[in-house]
Amino acid sequence: MHQGSSGFVPLDVPPSMHSMYCANMDLITKKTGRLMLFAGDQKIEHLNDDFFGVGISPDDADPEHLFRIAARGRIGVFAAQMGLIARYGADYPDVPYLVKINGKSHLIRTEQHDPVSTSWCSVDDVACFARDSGLLVAAVGYTVYPGSIHEAVMLREAACMVRDAHRHGLVSVLWVYPRGHAIGDEKDPHLIAGAAGVAACLGSDFVKVNSPKRAGISGGVFLDEAVRAAGRTKVICAGGSATDPLEFLTDLHRQIHEGGCAGNATGRNIHQKPLAEAIRMCNAIAAVTYDDATPGEAYLIYTRGGTSG
Amino acid sequence: MHQGSSGFVPLDVPPSMHSMYCANMDLITKKTGRLMLFAGDQKIEHLNDDFFGVGISPDDADPEHLFRIAARGRIGVFAAQMGLIARYGADYPDVPYLVKINGKSHLIRTEQHDPVSTSWCSVDDVACFARDSGLLVAAVGYTVYPGSIHEAVMLREAACMVRDAHRHGLVSVLWVYPRGHAIGDEKDPHLIAGAAGVAACLGSDFVKVNSPKRAGISGGVFLDEAVRAAGRTKVICAGGSATDPLEFLTDLHRQIHEGGCAGNATGRNIHQKPLAEAIRMCNAIAAVTYDDATPGEAYLIYTRGGTSG
Amino acid sequence: MHQGSSGFVPLDVPPSMHSMYCANMDLITKKTGRLMLFAGDQKIEHLNDDFFGVGISPDDADPEHLFRIAARGRIGVFAAQMGLIARYGADYPDVPYLVKINGKSHLIRTEQHDPVSTSWCSVDDVACFARDSGLLVAAVGYTVYPGSIHEAVMLREAACMVRDAHRHGLVSVLWVYPRGHAIGDEKDPHLIAGAAGVAACLGSDFVKVNSPKRAGISGGVFLDEAVRAAGRTKVICAGGSATDPLEFLTDLHRQIHEGGCAGNATGRNIHQKPLAEAIRMCNAIAAVTYDDATPGEAYLIYTRGGTSG
Amino acid sequence: MHQGSSGFVPLDVPPSMHSMYCANMDLITKKTGRLMLFAGDQKIEHLNDDFFGVGISPDDADPEHLFRIAARGRIGVFAAQMGLIARYGADYPDVPYLVKINGKSHLIRTEQHDPVSTSWCSVDDVACFARDSGLLVAAVGYTVYPGSIHEAVMLREAACMVRDAHRHGLVSVLWVYPRGHAIGDEKDPHLIAGAAGVAACLGSDFVKVNSPKRAGISGGVFLDEAVRAAGRTKVICAGGSATDPLEFLTDLHRQIHEGGCAGNATGRNIHQKPLAEAIRMCNAIAAVTYDDATPGEAYLIYTRGGTSG
Amino acid sequence: MHQGSSGFVPLDVPPSMHSMYCANMDLITKKTGRLMLFAGDQKIEHLNDDFFGVGISPDDADPEHLFRIAARGRIGVFAAQMGLIARYGADYPDVPYLVKINGKSHLIRTEQHDPVSTSWCSVDDVACFARDSGLLVAAVGYTVYPGSIHEAVMLREAACMVRDAHRHGLVSVLWVYPRGHAIGDEKDPHLIAGAAGVAACLGSDFVKVNSPKRAGISGGVFLDEAVRAAGRTKVICAGGSATDPLEFLTDLHRQIHEGGCAGNATGRNIHQKPLAEAIRMCNAIAAVTYDDATPGEAYLIYTRGGTSG
Repeated sequence: MHQGSSGFVPLDVPPSMHSMYCANMDLITKKTGRLMLFAGDQKIEHLNDDFFGVGISPDDADPEHLFRIAARGRIGVFAAQMGLIARYGADYPDVPYLVKINGKSHLIRTEQHDPVSTSWCSVDDVACFARDSGLLVAAVGYTVYPGSIHEAVMLREAACMVRDAHRHGLVSVLWVYPRGHAIGDEKDPHLIAGAAGVAACLGSDFVKVNSPKRAGISGGVFLDEAVRAAGRTKVICAGGSATDPLEFLTDLHRQIHEGGCAGNATGRNIHQKPLAEAIRMCNAIAAVTYDDATPGEAYLIYTRGGTSG
Repeated sequence: MHQGSSGFVPLDVPPSMHSMYCANMDLITKKTGRLMLFAGDQKIEHLNDDFFGVGISPDDADPEHLFRIAARGRIGVFAAQMGLIARYGADYPDVPYLVKINGKSHLIRTEQHDPVSTSWCSVDDVACFARDSGLLVAAVGYTVYPGSIHEAVMLREAACMVRDAHRHGLVSVLWVYPRGHAIGDEKDPHLIAGAAGVAACLGSDFVKVNSPKRAGISGGVFLDEAVRAAGRTKVICAGGSATDPLEFLTDLHRQIHEGGCAGNATGRNIHQKPLAEAIRMCNAIAAVTYDDATPGEAYLIYTRGGTSG
Repeated sequence: MHQGSSGFVPLDVPPSMHSMYCANMDLITKKTGRLMLFAGDQKIEHLNDDFFGVGISPDDADPEHLFRIAARGRIGVFAAQMGLIARYGADYPDVPYLVKINGKSHLIRTEQHDPVSTSWCSVDDVACFARDSGLLVAAVGYTVYPGSIHEAVMLREAACMVRDAHRHGLVSVLWVYPRGHAIGDEKDPHLIAGAAGVAACLGSDFVKVNSPKRAGISGGVFLDEAVRAAGRTKVICAGGSATDPLEFLTDLHRQIHEGGCAGNATGRNIHQKPLAEAIRMCNAIAAVTYDDATPGEAYLIYTRGGTSG
Repeated sequence: MHQGSSGFVPLDVPPSMHSMYCANMDLITKKTGRLMLFAGDQKIEHLNDDFFGVGISPDDADPEHLFRIAARGRIGVFAAQMGLIARYGADYPDVPYLVKINGKSHLIRTEQHDPVSTSWCSVDDVACFARDSGLLVAAVGYTVYPGSIHEAVMLREAACMVRDAHRHGLVSVLWVYPRGHAIGDEKDPHLIAGAAGVAACLGSDFVKVNSPKRAGISGGVFLDEAVRAAGRTKVICAGGSATDPLEFLTDLHRQIHEGGCAGNATGRNIHQKPLAEAIRMCNAIAAVTYDDATPGEAYLIYTRGGTSG
Repeated sequence: MHQGSSGFVPLDVPPSMHSMYCANMDLITKKTGRLMLFAGDQKIEHLNDDFFGVGISPDDADPEHLFRIAARGRIGVFAAQMGLIARYGADYPDVPYLVKINGKSHLIRTEQHDPVSTSWCSVDDVACFARDSGLLVAAVGYTVYPGSIHEAVMLREAACMVRDAHRHGLVSVLWVYPRGHAIGDEKDPHLIAGAAGVAACLGSDFVKVNSPKRAGISGGVFLDEAVRAAGRTKVICAGGSATDPLEFLTDLHRQIHEGGCAGNATGRNIHQKPLAEAIRMCNAIAAVTYDDATPGEAYLIYTRGGTSG
């Protein structure tokens, strides 16, 4: 049972952009109202920690790995920085792209300073790039850290990004992570519901939140408050910290069917695998997201290949 | 006995916008000079604390609850962020809206850092949104924290918002709360009178102040200094912390008739109730605000339904 | 013996604005080269402390009191924020106005943080307001706090204000108060002379400085260094802390005739009095300022009414 | 065996600038895909420490020394500030220039404050200068310090510089040095790989990183992770701290042939030598970079003169 | 033997401005390549300390003293703030002016906070003022404090000022003083050479540095490193702290003939004298600067009047 989305257009999309907005939404949700976001923005967020080291496929050392997966796996949208997309996009013209417009390194730990991440470009720059390059840029994204002493600058830029995205007929995705000295438990379900509500106030189409936990236990049910708080802003979630594929797919299924999530944003659980396996993992996640596949069905896709689509 | 307002136009409203300004003022004051503001901006200010938990109706978990109340209850204006309005406004086209242009979370406590809240959009953005969406955007709002080490940026933005609101024929409402390490008693009547005077200097049409208390006791009479200090800027006030509806309505009546307030801004005392009850509470508040109903008359509306209008 | 001013036009007034600049200067100096500035900007600077309390006339609780005085008393110019002027100006169209473009509250004490006050609007905004409203906006004003760690932003804005004022044919007045952790004695005559020189460097027409004191004693003679340091920028001064009207008028006379001041900026000593008395006080001050009245002659005006004009 | 580059054009170069971009890339890489960058930007970065003192040729005391070398030695591009280029360029019109658009002194040590370096001009200013002067401005450069508490402003400016460079058909070079209180070992190969990845996310054509070391030992092999992490952004590197020319050339050869580097950025090892020797050193470095000369062959060029080109 | 300058035009002067740039350079250097700058900017930098007190002529208490000297003494250019020039320039139309575009008070000591001085106006504002006023505005100036934690903002503004000055055909002068907690000995010759190199990187025509000292001893020879580091940016220097006129003139002669300086910037040693003596001092300094007069010849001019010109 899918959450209906096709046809819904927020009022800050001007009439002349309605069809483009709907086309972009349909492209990345495959007309299901759900979103499978393949996250490639960690090259700045985590530097090379996610791409090189023990337990990581050597394939992942080269950023082109991300584009190969995005082009050959079944995904909704591939999120990366505009600069990186500009260097590979010509060879991967059929990938639907989300341009992540802010980013920071993880070198300064939260204990040292409250986080701040500001935009690298405007949505106008993105729209200009999309037009000139001919790429399928369907969405833009931004990370907000509520509770940081710098939240004011990020709330302002996020509001601006959503408004400008809609003005250009693009879909908006906000990553909202409460973080900073003022924050106790970043995974508290009630706090995460608050984060989801922030995205609703900012008018975003989608919000990515951390997977909530209570007493160290995560579960789809803990997402329910957030999904309700987000209202017409759809919640997507990471698949938890599980690295076992079956567990991961099971968590994801619960997030969608128990927690009411509208999809997922997955990075490491895909790109740290060798190319063929990473593609099968994409296809498995997409099957859960877009086709209501069971964890078992999806796991078969992961292990044996093929898609449910 | 109403405070006259119809026809008064501040000089920073350009002549070409006089009729629009008056129409907006009449719309939200119902030509009484008073204002019943239904506050929906806490989703960012208090995250999900005001919308989910013990003693809060499950209806309130979904932001659409706010729009349902605003559409079916008798209100002057419904205050929310532009992003949220953009996602629901098409289904609630008859609600008079106030776009709150700044906002912050409550995650950083005043003891940790002085508050700062900066604008998410300009009034030009709001005017553009109003025109494109066709919604009844009648007013804009902004919160200032005098006494914060960041007051300079907020005073500047507030002055700009009032000026731009008037330039576009919109009504302006300022929330003025002295807050920060330099502030002793936030509820001191003399300090609150100062806050009201700040709004007068900024040229606002309305100012929302905290309900003043002396020695822990609130009362309409403590508002008198503020109402006088505000001059031609009209003071609206929260209904105190009372959660008992009759007490709340009695406080409100005193604020207006003893304290000289021009209305109220009410959020939790409305939206934390189930829909039908919330609507009746709106109607009761509106009766006190707009029709000079007695607390008893208003309470009957709350308990039995109907309106005095 | 008046200090000549009529006809002097600084070179940053463009030729097309010469006649307007001279008209504004003549209006507020009554062609004497001196200025009696009635200060109404404390509603933000001192919140309600100057307007409500023991020893203050109840008339002063309402900001309209200021406009009533300005309209009926003999003054050079009435200084207030643009927002406040916008709400009352239509009823007081004959008052010559000075728009104070920055302001801050006094809630943060100097011991807590160095002061910063930034502009609420540009001089272009003021010029636009003057044109649209038809009011007699003859001057603009700005406060600088040299010695504050934030002095750079204020020096920049002050220089900009003077330049833009002259570009629009408006008279400029700077309030220059050395203040902050780096400052020892704010009333030191040599420091105040430095402050006056700052205004000269900024190109202002008038500078308001604190009344200098040495060893706790004030006197016109202590102003001499400042008046010389200011050069062609004219110094105006508060009338000291004396609240006895005769003493006040005597101080003022000395400031002008011993110290070489070109006038005064007076607020509390006028508006804390009941309307009729406040008007007589204005007239008394104006007599000293504009007509070279003796303190005794002026005091008679204060006590018996009438003007020397 | 050269890394192919000719013909590759990132998608943020607009079609009308393709030929100019390729011409600039060919000019500075001599169509080899490699870059020999002669660095003259230390006059601000290290003040006069690199130009005057024991072991430094007196020739180096005069900034014209840099231009003489750039004009007569075989280099790819000469990096300096636009102001300096403006004073000498007319006499050295055939040098290919890279305008370094940010810079800071080394007076504040990292232990005192995290570094911040902001741009002195925009790429539009550079393009305007190039057009008006007729100089061969082929590239622009910027330094980023990830891990500094100021990284946000530098990431934003760097992204903007790369985008604007490509919009103007210019080649972009980023210097990316993790630095600040949060950074442990600046030379850690894994951290440097992260830095290279940052440049890839920013979309730069080239990234200059520090020569990585492990346990105090440097070596071409430690560059491998960085070169892979950078993907289609080419890595250039300093020649290590060796000041013995043969060692320096051997290191450089290893960086290219073992580490996969696409060239080098060399300053002190060239300009601290007397003019004739400095020119021969350029030629030797160029031989390794562009002609795959062995260290021995290159050393002969350094000692005996001539070029391999 | 003069340093040739006539005819040299940096490449950031657009061709249409070549003749104006050369005319301005010739005007202030009297076609000698040297500059005698009469500094009047201390009214903000030192407040009234340099203008009033023991050992200072009473003439100096009035800022018009500076203009009288500039008009009647032989100088290259008179440096002051635009606001001050605007108030006196009409009466002193033949003085060549340098508009100093930034400035700060000395109230905050370096031990308290690192210095920051930001621009009061843009070079476009200066060009506009020059055109409208008809004054001989030939140059602009800016002070940079390398080593301050605020150096980034000043380096950026300085680079912008030089570029814009040249775009308008104006001569640029930078004051470069390393200052702040990170700086040990502000007078160290090697550090001052670094400061001179900073100005070269910024592309300035002239740089004013402090007179270098080693072990408390100053001397022309200590300037040599700075003069070489500055390259085609010409170094001017204060005449040391000597207040004995013959010593001052001897120091100046050595700075030029031993140190290779291109002139001087002198304030207090001129304007603290009575008018006639100050004029003779100007003429004496000008004789050394422009006419290669010996200290003895110049001293005669100072004592007996006349000029060598």
